Amino acid sequence: MSDDYFPDVEQILYEGPDSGNPLAFKHYNPIEQVEGKPMAEHLRFSVAYWHSFCNGGADPFGSETRQMPWISGSPMDQARNKVNACFEFCRKLGVSFYCFHDRDVAPEGDSLKETNKNLDKIVEMLAERQEQTGIRPLWGTACLFSHPRFMHGAATSCNADVFAYAAAQVAKAIEVTHTLGGQGYVFWGGREGYKSLLNTDMARELDHLAKFLHMAVEHKHKIGFKGQLYIEPKPKEPTKHQYDFDAAACHAFLQKYDLDGELKLNVEANHATLAGHDFHHELTYAAANDMLGSVDANRGDLLLGWDTDQFPTNLYDTTLAMMSILSAGGFSTGGLNFDAHVTRESIDPVDLFHAHIGGMDAFARGLKIASAMRADGVLSDFVKQRYVSWDTGVGADIEAGKVGFEELSRYMLDKGEPEPNASGRVEMLENAINEYIR
Amino acid sequence: MSDDYFPDVEQILYEGPDSGNPLAFKHYNPIEQVEGKPMAEHLRFSVAYWHSFCNGGADPFGSETRQMPWISGSPMDQARNKVNACFEFCRKLGVSFYCFHDRDVAPEGDSLKETNKNLDKIVEMLAERQEQTGIRPLWGTACLFSHPRFMHGAATSCNADVFAYAAAQVAKAIEVTHTLGGQGYVFWGGREGYKSLLNTDMARELDHLAKFLHMAVEHKHKIGFKGQLYIEPKPKEPTKHQYDFDAAACHAFLQKYDLDGELKLNVEANHATLAGHDFHHELTYAAANDMLGSVDANRGDLLLGWDTDQFPTNLYDTTLAMMSILSAGGFSTGGLNFDAHVTRESIDPVDLFHAHIGGMDAFARGLKIASAMRADGVLSDFVKQRYVSWDTGVGADIEAGKVGFEELSRYMLDKGEPEPNASGRVEMLENAINEYIR
Amino acid sequence: MSDDYFPDVEQILYEGPDSGNPLAFKHYNPIEQVEGKPMAEHLRFSVAYWHSFCNGGADPFGSETRQMPWISGSPMDQARNKVNACFEFCRKLGVSFYCFHDRDVAPEGDSLKETNKNLDKIVEMLAERQEQTGIRPLWGTACLFSHPRFMHGAATSCNADVFAYAAAQVAKAIEVTHTLGGQGYVFWGGREGYKSLLNTDMARELDHLAKFLHMAVEHKHKIGFKGQLYIEPKPKEPTKHQYDFDAAACHAFLQKYDLDGELKLNVEANHATLAGHDFHHELTYAAANDMLGSVDANRGDLLLGWDTDQFPTNLYDTTLAMMSILSAGGFSTGGLNFDAHVTRESIDPVDLFHAHIGGMDAFARGLKIASAMRADGVLSDFVKQRYVSWDTGVGADIEAGKVGFEELSRYMLDKGEPEPNASGRVEMLENAINEYIR
Amino acid sequence: MSDDYFPDVEQILYEGPDSGNPLAFKHYNPIEQVEGKPMAEHLRFSVAYWHSFCNGGADPFGSETRQMPWISGSPMDQARNKVNACFEFCRKLGVSFYCFHDRDVAPEGDSLKETNKNLDKIVEMLAERQEQTGIRPLWGTACLFSHPRFMHGAATSCNADVFAYAAAQVAKAIEVTHTLGGQGYVFWGGREGYKSLLNTDMARELDHLAKFLHMAVEHKHKIGFKGQLYIEPKPKEPTKHQYDFDAAACHAFLQKYDLDGELKLNVEANHATLAGHDFHHELTYAAANDMLGSVDANRGDLLLGWDTDQFPTNLYDTTLAMMSILSAGGFSTGGLNFDAHVTRESIDPVDLFHAHIGGMDAFARGLKIASAMRADGVLSDFVKQRYVSWDTGVGADIEAGKVGFEELSRYMLDKGEPEPNASGRVEMLENAINEYIR
Repeated sequence: MSDDYFPDVEQILYEGPDSGNPLAFKHYNPIEQVEGKPMAEHLRFSVAYWHSFCNGGADPFGSETRQMPWISGSPMDQARNKVNACFEFCRKLGVSFYCFHDRDVAPEGDSLKETNKNLDKIVEMLAERQEQTGIRPLWGTACLFSHPRFMHGAATSCNADVFAYAAAQVAKAIEVTHTLGGQGYVFWGGREGYKSLLNTDMARELDHLAKFLHMAVEHKHKIGFKGQLYIEPKPKEPTKHQYDFDAAACHAFLQKYDLDGELKLNVEANHATLAGHDFHHELTYAAANDMLGSVDANRGDLLLGWDTDQFPTNLYDTTLAMMSILSAGGFSTGGLNFDAHVTRESIDPVDLFHAHIGGMDAFARGLKIASAMRADGVLSDFVKQRYVSWDTGVGADIEAGKVGFEELSRYMLDKGEPEPNASGRVEMLENAINEYIR
Repeated sequence: MSDDYFPDVEQILYEGPDSGNPLAFKHYNPIEQVEGKPMAEHLRFSVAYWHSFCNGGADPFGSETRQMPWISGSPMDQARNKVNACFEFCRKLGVSFYCFHDRDVAPEGDSLKETNKNLDKIVEMLAERQEQTGIRPLWGTACLFSHPRFMHGAATSCNADVFAYAAAQVAKAIEVTHTLGGQGYVFWGGREGYKSLLNTDMARELDHLAKFLHMAVEHKHKIGFKGQLYIEPKPKEPTKHQYDFDAAACHAFLQKYDLDGELKLNVEANHATLAGHDFHHELTYAAANDMLGSVDANRGDLLLGWDTDQFPTNLYDTTLAMMSILSAGGFSTGGLNFDAHVTRESIDPVDLFHAHIGGMDAFARGLKIASAMRADGVLSDFVKQRYVSWDTGVGADIEAGKVGFEELSRYMLDKGEPEPNASGRVEMLENAINEYIR
Repeated sequence: MSDDYFPDVEQILYEGPDSGNPLAFKHYNPIEQVEGKPMAEHLRFSVAYWHSFCNGGADPFGSETRQMPWISGSPMDQARNKVNACFEFCRKLGVSFYCFHDRDVAPEGDSLKETNKNLDKIVEMLAERQEQTGIRPLWGTACLFSHPRFMHGAATSCNADVFAYAAAQVAKAIEVTHTLGGQGYVFWGGREGYKSLLNTDMARELDHLAKFLHMAVEHKHKIGFKGQLYIEPKPKEPTKHQYDFDAAACHAFLQKYDLDGELKLNVEANHATLAGHDFHHELTYAAANDMLGSVDANRGDLLLGWDTDQFPTNLYDTTLAMMSILSAGGFSTGGLNFDAHVTRESIDPVDLFHAHIGGMDAFARGLKIASAMRADGVLSDFVKQRYVSWDTGVGADIEAGKVGFEELSRYMLDKGEPEPNASGRVEMLENAINEYIR
Repeated sequence: MSDDYFPDVEQILYEGPDSGNPLAFKHYNPIEQVEGKPMAEHLRFSVAYWHSFCNGGADPFGSETRQMPWISGSPMDQARNKVNACFEFCRKLGVSFYCFHDRDVAPEGDSLKETNKNLDKIVEMLAERQEQTGIRPLWGTACLFSHPRFMHGAATSCNADVFAYAAAQVAKAIEVTHTLGGQGYVFWGGREGYKSLLNTDMARELDHLAKFLHMAVEHKHKIGFKGQLYIEPKPKEPTKHQYDFDAAACHAFLQKYDLDGELKLNVEANHATLAGHDFHHELTYAAANDMLGSVDANRGDLLLGWDTDQFPTNLYDTTLAMMSILSAGGFSTGGLNFDAHVTRESIDPVDLFHAHIGGMDAFARGLKIASAMRADGVLSDFVKQRYVSWDTGVGADIEAGKVGFEELSRYMLDKGEPEPNASGRVEMLENAINEYIR
C-alpha cells in the first residue's frame, strides 16, 4: 500500500476526550455502540474526492495555494496519484467511503470516447484499491457544470446536443458507480437553472429535466444498479436560480413529474442555509416527506452569501442533524459525506486531517448527545405532551376525518373560546440542549 | 354617498404623462385598450382594507402616527366609519375591488357568536355600498394570526381547539365572501409554521393543515361559492419558518395532499424577495405550473429583512410582472391587490392617494411596456430561436420520448462534441427593456 | 420585600453541572474565582426592564400574549408594580444590575412637566428598593423612538422642536441615572437615521446629532455624573438606515465630531449580525480602538432579517465574546445586559427565569472556557508565533518607521520573493475550541 | 491603428432614443451640454482592463467560456494583444479612460525584477497608444490579491516580507500610473482582512495597513504624482471580513491614522449593496464627509450574496447616483469606471459592446433625469422646506451653539410639546422620480 503523500501522519486513532493530540479522535470511536449500532455504522463518513484531492484553493480572486504533491505529471499520472492519495488518506483516517464526480477521478480526453477510456482505466485502479482496503463509494456523480459546453445547463440547456452529451455522460457515470459498488448516485444540477429569465423558457427546461431523470431511472434499472438515486437541493449557485432550490422545490418537482418514488434527497448543510433554511429544517422536511437519503456534511458562514463549504464543527448543528437522522431511522444507503474544503490558507496536507478529524468528532459528539437526549426523552416527551389535545376528543375526531367545518363551527360556537394555550417553553428546551453538550 | 374623510381630494382622473398634477394618473387610463382589453380589465386593482383603513403606522419600535379620522367612537362605530372611508377612497381612486380580512371589517365580540353577529352587521352595510358603487371584493380572508389564541398556529396549532376555532372562523369568512360576491378567497398561513423545531411535530402539523384545506374546499362547494381559493406563499414572518415558504413549497404541499386542483397561488412581490426569489420568478414558476391566481402588488426593500410592504413603483418589476401575467393569459378571478402601506411618516390621508396613484401608474406603464415588447417580439422571438435545436432532430426526439440514455450515448459517442453554444445575450436584452421604458 | 409576581420560584442557586433542576444554575457560580476575580464581577449581568417587565409579546402580526400580572391598575400603578416585579426578579435571579429607558419605568403624562413628575416618583421608589437590595442600574437611557413626535428622528429630526424635546428628555434621563447611581448612560439612536434619502439632508442631520451629543457630554460634566457614556450601534431598524450602523460607523462619526474621548460603545450581538458582522468581530473592533464599553447580550437568528433579541445560549458566541472581553481587561463600568426577550409563545412568568438562567449559564461557561484557553495559550501562542516575522528584521524596521517604499523595493528586488507563507491552520484552531467546550 | 479584434463593430455613434440599432447610443451624446458641461465631461467613462480583456468567464464552478482572440501566443504576446484590443475597443466605444491593475497589463516574470521589466515594456506600448488616441488611465492599481504570496494579506499579512513585496509592487504601480498620466491611484484591499479571527491580530494588522498607506502617500509626493489616491470599500470578499468594509469603515480608519486628508473613496455600487447599503447611500455618505472621489459603476443582484459585477442598467440607480454626483459638484479626477463583466454566457466579443453601451446609456439617462429634477427643484425644494424649522428660532440657536440642554429643557418644559410633525411624503417623491424617467 502506498504511503507517499502523508508520510508524517500515522493512523488516526481514538484517544478519548482528554487526549491533547490534535491528530487523534477525542469522540469518534468507530466501534462504540450507540443505540445498538457501532458509531461507524451510524455515521458512514465519506471523503469528497473533489475537495480533498482536486481543489487547490483557488477562489474568484486568486490562484491555487495548496501543496498537493499528487498533482504532478501528465493528467493521467495525476489521476493515478489522486487514487493513491485518496486511499492513503481514507485509510489513515479510518473512513470507509468516498464520493466522486466522474471528472474528479479521470481527465477529459479529446473526445467522449477517449474520456470514457480514461475513466475506465482509473476505475480499474479504484476497484483494485477498493478490493485491498474495503473502502468504497458512498455515491458517484457526473460533473455537468464545469466544462463550457454546459454553460447554459446540461439537461436544461437550450442546446439539445448538450442534453444528449449529458445523457451519455450520466449513463457512463451510473455504470461506473455500479461497477465500483457505489451505494447511491447523486444529481446535483449545477447549471440546471437560469442566469436570467429574459432569455429562458422555464417550463420547457423543467420538462427536459424531468425527461432526463426518467431516462436515468430507466437506465439504472436496465443495468441492474440497486443504489439509491438522490437529488441535491441547492439555490443561487452557480446560476442565479437553480431549479433544485431547496428540499421543498425538489419535492414539488419530483411529485409533478412522478419521480418521487425513485429519488430521495442528498441534503447539504450549507445549501440549506443559502436557501434561507436551517440545516435541521431541511433534514426534518425531508424526513417528514420520506425523502431523507444522504447528507453533505459541511458548514456555511451565515454572514457570507455563498457556499463556503467549511468543515462541520458546530455541535448544535451536528446534534440536531443526528437527532433528525436517528428519528428517521438512520441511514440505509446514505451517509455523511464531507462536502467541505479547508480554507485557502490551510496549505499543508496535514490540514486535511485536522479538518476531517474535527468534522468526525463533531458528528460523533452530535450522535452521542442526540442519543442521550432521546434516551431521556428531553424533547420527544415535551413534544408528545404538547400535542396531547389531538389524541382524544375533537382533535382525534379531526384527525380521523369525522368532522368538517359545520361540526367544528357548532362545537366552537357552543364553547365560545378554545382551551387556553400553554407556553411553548422554547428557552427551557434550548437550555436543555446546552446541558447535554458536555 | 359619504364624502367625509378625504374632503380635499377630488376624483382622480387620467391626465396623461405631461400632467404636473400629483393627484392625477399619468399612465393609468382605465378605458385605454391594450391587447384588446381595457386597462381596467387587465389590471383589476384592489385596495387592501387592512393597510389603508386599519394600519395606523405602528412598528415594533413605536406607536401609531397616522391621521385616520375614521378611527373614532366605539369599535362598531369605527367599523362603520371604515366602510365609508373605504368606499369613498375606492370611488375617488376609481378602483373596483377591495380585499379584506374578517377582522378588518368588524371587531371581535366577547364570544364567537357575538363576533359573527358584528360581522353580519357590517357585511350588510358593505353589501349596500357595493350595490351603490359596483365596487366588490377581489377576495376575502380570515385573520388567523393576530389574536393570542393563534399564537401556536391556527390549523397547525398544537391545541386542537384552535383548529376548531379557525375552522369556524374560516367557514364564516368564506360564507361572507360568497355573500359579497367576492371573486376569490385567500389562505395566508400567518402562524402556520414554527418558531422553533425543538417543540414542533412538523409532519403532524402539515397533515393538519392539509385536513383544514380539504374541509375548506368541501365547505366552499357545499355553500356554492364559485370563487377561486388561493394560498399565499410567505417565508419567515411572523413565524421563523412558514410552511408556505414560497411558490415551490406551496406547490409541493398542494400536490402531496391532492389539493393542487383546488387552490392556486396569490403571489406577493415582497414575499417573493424575502424567500430569495425575484417577483418575476415566482410569477413565472406559478404560471409554468398552472398555479398563477392573483397578485399582491407591493415592493420590498431588498436590503431589509422583513416585509416592508411598500407601494410598487419600480418599473422593471411592474414590466416583468405584466409580461408574466400577459403570457399566462391575464387574470380571470384574480387581480392586483395593493398589499402595501404608506411609510410610518406619511401621516396625511392624502398620502394614501399618492401611494395608490403611484402604484397604479407604475403597473399601467408596466402593462404598456410589456405589451409593446410582446408586440415587437423583443424577448419572445429571441427565446424561441434560442431553443430551436429542440424543435427538430435529436431535440425533437428527446421531447417525443423516442430516445433514452443508450441512444443518446451512441449519438454523442459518434458526434464527439455538441454543436457550439450561442451567446446568451443577456446584456443586449437588458438594454432592450430600458429602451421600452420611456 | 414583596414576593408577589413569581410566587412559585425560589431563589435560583448554583447547583453544578449535574443538577437536573431547570431552575438552578449549572455553571454560573457568582463567587467562583476566574482569573483572580469572582464570576459575578467578570460578568456583571443586568436585566433589561423593557423586555422583561414591559414587553407583552406583541409582534407586527399579533397582539400581546404574555401573563404579566404586574400590568394592572392605572399607568402609575403599573409603574409601581413593575418596580416590585423587577426587584423580586433580580433578587431571586441573583443579578445586581438592571437597565432601563425613562419611559419603561414611568408613564408619560399630559406634558413634559407631568411626565418628569411621574418619573421622579418612581425614581424615588427605585432608589428605595436599591437601598434595600444593592441592585442598581448598569445604565439608563431615554426612549426617543416610540412616541410619534420622534417619527422623523430625535436629535436628527427635521423638526427643531423635537431636538429640543429630546434634549430636555435626555437631560432628565442622565440626571435620573446619576441619582440612581447608574454606572453608565446609553445612546441608542432608534430613529436617528432615515427612511428615505429622497427627503433627507444627511449632512445636516449628522451635524445635529453631534451637536446633541456634545450637549449631553457638557450636561454630564455639569451635573457631576461620572458614569460612562455609550453609543450603541445598530443598522436597519427601525429606520431604513441608522446612522450608528455598526462599530466602525460610530467610530467614524465620533472621531469626525471629536467625541471619541467621551463615548465608548455598547455592543449588541444581534445588532452586529444585522450589520453583517460576527458579534466577536464587533467586540474585537471595539477593543482594538479602545471603545469597548458594555455589551447587550442576546442572540439573533441569522436567517431572519430583524432583531430577534433571543437569549444568548450559543456557547461559541459566549466563549469568543468572553475571550475578547478578558483580552480587553474586562469590564469597568460596563457589563452584560440581557437585551433579550422570551419568544412570543413563552407566556408564563417562569419563562423569564428559564431564559435568564440559560443566558447566565451560557456566559459563565463562555467565561470558564475562554479563561482555560487563555491559561493554555491555545490561540494566543499561535497568533504570537504567526506574526513573528514582525518582531525582528524587516518587520521590526517597518513597525519602527525606519523604512519606506524605496528601501523596501530595494530589499525585495534583491530578495526576489518573500519567505514562504505558513498554513493558517484555521481548522485545527476551530477543533481546539470544541475540545474546550465540555 | 489596429482593427483586429472587433472587425464587425464600427464606431458606436449617438443615434437618439428612436434608433432601433442595438449598437448605437440612444442617450449618450458626448457633446450634449448638461448643466453647462458636455456629457462626456460629466460622466468620464472608463473601461476596466481586467474585466473586458482578461476575464474569460470562469466562475467557481466552471472554466472560461469566452472568445477572446487576443489571448494567444506567449504571455508577453498576449499582453501586447490586450493593449491593441483595449485601444480598439475604447476608440470604437468613444471612451477616453481605462483603469488597470499592474498584472492585467503585463505578466509576472520569474522575479520581481523581471516582472517590472515586463511591465515597463508594455507601459511603453500603452504610452504610445495613448499618444495616438488621447485615451488615458482614469486610475491605476496593483494586484495584491491573486498570487498565493498574498494569501494572508498584503500590507496586513502576518508575513513581513509580503508587506515589503507589496510595497515594492505599489511603488512601481504608482510610478507607472504617473508615467501614463493617470488621474488617480486606487487601493482595493483584496486580501486586507481576515478569514478567521482565531488566528488574527486585528489591531496589529490595522496598524500595518496604515503604515503602508503613509508610505504610499510619501512616495507619491516624492515622485511628484499629482493624481488622487483612493481607497475602495468592499465587504466580505475575498476574505470573510475586509477592513475596508464600507465607506464609514474607511472613514473611521483614515481618520484614526490621520490619512483622511490624502485619500478619497472609490465607491462601487455592488460593494455598497454587499455591505447592506444602497449605492446612493454610500455616495451620499462619501459626499457628506468630503470623500467622494470616483465611482466603480456596476450593478449587483441583491438576491445573490457576492459581487456579481453586472453592467449598470437600472435607471433608478443611475439617476440617484448622478443626483449625488452633481450635488457634490461632479467629478474632478474621478469618473465612472465600468467595474463590470458580461455574464459567463455572453461569449462573443460583441457582447462587450452591448454591455458598455447599455451602461453608458443608463448613466446618460440618469444624468439627464437628475439634471432635469435639479432644474425643477423636485427633491431639493422639498428638502429645504422640510428642515425650515432649523433656519430660525430654536433651530438656528441650536445650530449656532447658543443653547444647551438646560436652555432647551426650559424651552420645552414651557412649551410642553413640539410643533406637529409634517408628513414625510416619500410616496409622492417616489412617484415624482418615475415621472422624470421617460
